[in-house]
Amino acid sequence: MSQTNPFEIDLDRRPANYQPLTPLSLLERSAGIYPDKTAIIHGSQRITYRDFWQRSLRLASALNRRGIGRGDTVSVMAPNTPQMLEAHFGVPMSGAVLNSLNIRLDGPTIGHILEHGEAKILLTDTEFAPVIREALAVSGKDLLVIDIDDPEGEGGERLGGLDYEDFLKEGTPDFEWIMPEDEWDAISLNYTSGTTGNPKGVVCHHRGAYLAAMSNPMMIGLGSDSVYLWTLPMFHCNGWCFTWGVSAMGATHVCLRKFDPATVFRLIEEHGVTHQCGAPIILNAMAHAAEEVKPSFKSKVVIATGGAAPPSPVIAALEPMGFEVIHLYGLTEVYGPATICAWQKSWDDLDLEGRASKKARQGVVYPSLNGMRIGDPETLEAVPADGETLGELMLRGNTVMKGYLKNLEESEKSLKDGWYRTGDLGVMHPDGYIEIKDRSKDIIISGGENISSLEIEETLYRHPQILEAAVVARPDEKWGETPCAFVTLKDSSAETNAEEIIQFCREHMAHYKTPKTVVFLELPKTSTGKIQKHVLREKAQAL
Amino acid sequence: MSQTNPFEIDLDRRPANYQPLTPLSLLERSAGIYPDKTAIIHGSQRITYRDFWQRSLRLASALNRRGIGRGDTVSVMAPNTPQMLEAHFGVPMSGAVLNSLNIRLDGPTIGHILEHGEAKILLTDTEFAPVIREALAVSGKDLLVIDIDDPEGEGGERLGGLDYEDFLKEGTPDFEWIMPEDEWDAISLNYTSGTTGNPKGVVCHHRGAYLAAMSNPMMIGLGSDSVYLWTLPMFHCNGWCFTWGVSAMGATHVCLRKFDPATVFRLIEEHGVTHQCGAPIILNAMAHAAEEVKPSFKSKVVIATGGAAPPSPVIAALEPMGFEVIHLYGLTEVYGPATICAWQKSWDDLDLEGRASKKARQGVVYPSLNGMRIGDPETLEAVPADGETLGELMLRGNTVMKGYLKNLEESEKSLKDGWYRTGDLGVMHPDGYIEIKDRSKDIIISGGENISSLEIEETLYRHPQILEAAVVARPDEKWGETPCAFVTLKDSSAETNAEEIIQFCREHMAHYKTPKTVVFLELPKTSTGKIQKHVLREKAQAL
Repeated sequence: MSQTNPFEIDLDRRPANYQPLTPLSLLERSAGIYPDKTAIIHGSQRITYRDFWQRSLRLASALNRRGIGRGDTVSVMAPNTPQMLEAHFGVPMSGAVLNSLNIRLDGPTIGHILEHGEAKILLTDTEFAPVIREALAVSGKDLLVIDIDDPEGEGGERLGGLDYEDFLKEGTPDFEWIMPEDEWDAISLNYTSGTTGNPKGVVCHHRGAYLAAMSNPMMIGLGSDSVYLWTLPMFHCNGWCFTWGVSAMGATHVCLRKFDPATVFRLIEEHGVTHQCGAPIILNAMAHAAEEVKPSFKSKVVIATGGAAPPSPVIAALEPMGFEVIHLYGLTEVYGPATICAWQKSWDDLDLEGRASKKARQGVVYPSLNGMRIGDPETLEAVPADGETLGELMLRGNTVMKGYLKNLEESEKSLKDGWYRTGDLGVMHPDGYIEIKDRSKDIIISGGENISSLEIEETLYRHPQILEAAVVARPDEKWGETPCAFVTLKDSSAETNAEEIIQFCREHMAHYKTPKTVVFLELPKTSTGKIQKHVLREKAQAL
Repeated sequence: MSQTNPFEIDLDRRPANYQPLTPLSLLERSAGIYPDKTAIIHGSQRITYRDFWQRSLRLASALNRRGIGRGDTVSVMAPNTPQMLEAHFGVPMSGAVLNSLNIRLDGPTIGHILEHGEAKILLTDTEFAPVIREALAVSGKDLLVIDIDDPEGEGGERLGGLDYEDFLKEGTPDFEWIMPEDEWDAISLNYTSGTTGNPKGVVCHHRGAYLAAMSNPMMIGLGSDSVYLWTLPMFHCNGWCFTWGVSAMGATHVCLRKFDPATVFRLIEEHGVTHQCGAPIILNAMAHAAEEVKPSFKSKVVIATGGAAPPSPVIAALEPMGFEVIHLYGLTEVYGPATICAWQKSWDDLDLEGRASKKARQGVVYPSLNGMRIGDPETLEAVPADGETLGELMLRGNTVMKGYLKNLEESEKSLKDGWYRTGDLGVMHPDGYIEIKDRSKDIIISGGENISSLEIEETLYRHPQILEAAVVARPDEKWGETPCAFVTLKDSSAETNAEEIIQFCREHMAHYKTPKTVVFLELPKTSTGKIQKHVLREKAQAL
């Protein structure tokens, strides 16, 4: 209607009203409000918010004095320790980009990442000296290596000439930390492990990290009084951005170098833990822990999981112990969690199976994103919300990565259509909740029918003797492919066999979907605990 | 260190990873997750999230068909009704800017706002027909006037030819709502009432409104199960952005055309209200309500207030009824709340006066802002954090307005120095909490000493017979100025007098600060309930 828009005249951005969104300022805020509160618990160590902030400033300052700044990469190889949290703030506060390394990777792969990611400095926990020594040899890079000698660790060789604590002394807590020039500036570089080929470097920006740091606490109900236990690796999408989010709320981090159920239950009791996150394998281990290590007290812990739906036996085991399981879904490319199975009050009265089947769905989109679609992979059109039509999950919004570092081809493939293509296949239910059925390549096509390997796995998990299960396609002359199940039993002496398991499946799902083959073995896993389906696929082909 | 920054190559913004931040998409999200949940309660009406969303879409569509779009202003004159909530989404979803009018203003002032704000369409509740008729006559504008005939209202003349419900029928819920082209685009235009001169039009943007909608629920602990009672006018900084924030969480709005304590207590009980906001006068009225209307049940309601510190007698009266009082501070220019007196656990054990004096402080900055300073008004340098040195409160960040509409001079004055200058004077305590002492012009300078009128008022409020108090400067030959107190007694037949009140002050504060004059009267107030100090100043001069 208007010829001139009065709202665009003399109303430009200025420093007073426009500042780059960044999670870094959120730690500064928490340190200002709760200087004497415990920010980090690690063994017998207690680090206040004042010290957390000042140590992060020292780190930023020391990096700055060593010539590190905008566009430089600083890599870190560490388990869930205070130094890792400090790196999440101190590194970007120097203007640099944080590259957290997957501590389960092998030397050559890490060497490749250091090279591809153009690391200038490496902070490394002495536990990983052997693999880092190999990585450095492979990469041939002349890196400044700073050793983190964590008193809670088991020691290990020092590789560089500089100790982390000494390095901090090179810096000053009076350092004026470097705001990003633009909130689109990179804050982190995370390599996805994938299952084959060379890893891809996911570049995240300050804007998205701020929004994730605000959204995550909101989604799982984490506040300033919360106590968050680190059962999720911090190297995993920056700990699903909870490294920043827990600090943003002024809550307390409880660090943990190595997961085991007994330690977890002890820490929950000792520190009044209220929240944790973890891969399904973590929940599984807690659910099936030996009775003598299970807590005698009733916890009140929200535990968020993602990567696969929490199976009903796990929910059934955890709920009586006082755990509330929240199902999230995400990927490194979307800063960790991107959807949540938001609970509906009307589901409270369902029985265990009913609740588990609701909770198995990946749910609804995060408030930091503003588009979610199950779309036809060709046309991108949304498929009907009928809970049956399979399509690809696509996401859009401000917690989607900038792209892959130095890999325009892959960036284009996944981002060019106006949507981030997750590569995951799923359905849209009539109530607007999505449910992932499979990775594109995990669909089994048998007699022309698409069969979801995930669906078969869910059925297998309901079998009382099965601890873990994975299903892949096995080539078949008649059907093209048939489902082949690999299972680990809870007790290897259990009285079951392939026929009995197939029969169990026939009773619980459509006959054409039941596995034709069942193999008993210990499932092969990646360094992040993902089942290596490509290994199983090779096995199935060789059968 | 780097010559080229690999994080800036081939990693540009695209639709998949960059979308304008706007609160509008948050309602779409809530409607998707909770379609059948009650979004709005108004008298006997219940509006689900599906209907809230679809009615907002219809409104946007109808506006669009009438030629409204980007840069156009749509004004609305309504109390806290569902239509007002719909306007907060439907108007910007058409691309237009929402101008909520202060329903307590007089006709000529509204006429001036309609003209200055370039309103194209006016939605108006029939209750306000007389004042709007006058406003239209004054402005001489040929506006499309749409009458809202709320069944919960008391009726009134229709001014336009078009009824709101009929207007909605012109639109369609299939409308593709208009995303802002840029998150810096204007979403709302709010005129500050000020106390003198012509009103200033504060322009807010989508980015800030999104951040406020995310921050406010976080600050007062509002979640999807919450029930929010509208005791704060929605025209007041868009209801401190809770219009958007409550909807963002999928919580329930309880509308309220007109405040009175008995109704409020009844609605709290009926609907299980968990949260409300209100000016001090609201809390005061609830605290001093007649015993027979006070709730017999124990509520569990968080009540956030701002504009002045909640006095200890109000806290003392509200807490036993189950109210938790949160003290916020803000201004229209910063989207409502900008600071919060974040509670520290160590304060729990203080006695009432101790807790009230902690709570009287305006506190710490919101996470949507990233700078707060008590600065020297000349040099802008931060004053010492000694709890004594007076300076001007300055704010910086992403919930600061774009500026004043068509008023570059005022925009410059308040925004040019890299900070938004609030004009409020306060101190920074050693613990990093700010405390407002006065508006610049409310400082009394007596014998060369700065005296905070607020401090005297706080002392007066502790007097058992005083209901309300305001202190201004009275010209004095000897001292330059002396403090002059205007007070309203709880009971006009109370046995007190000026001398007794002055003596009370001398016992509770430094002698030089005690009022030299005490006047008993009903305090004059603005349409938003602010005490009109300029009127009192004139009275003091004439004494």
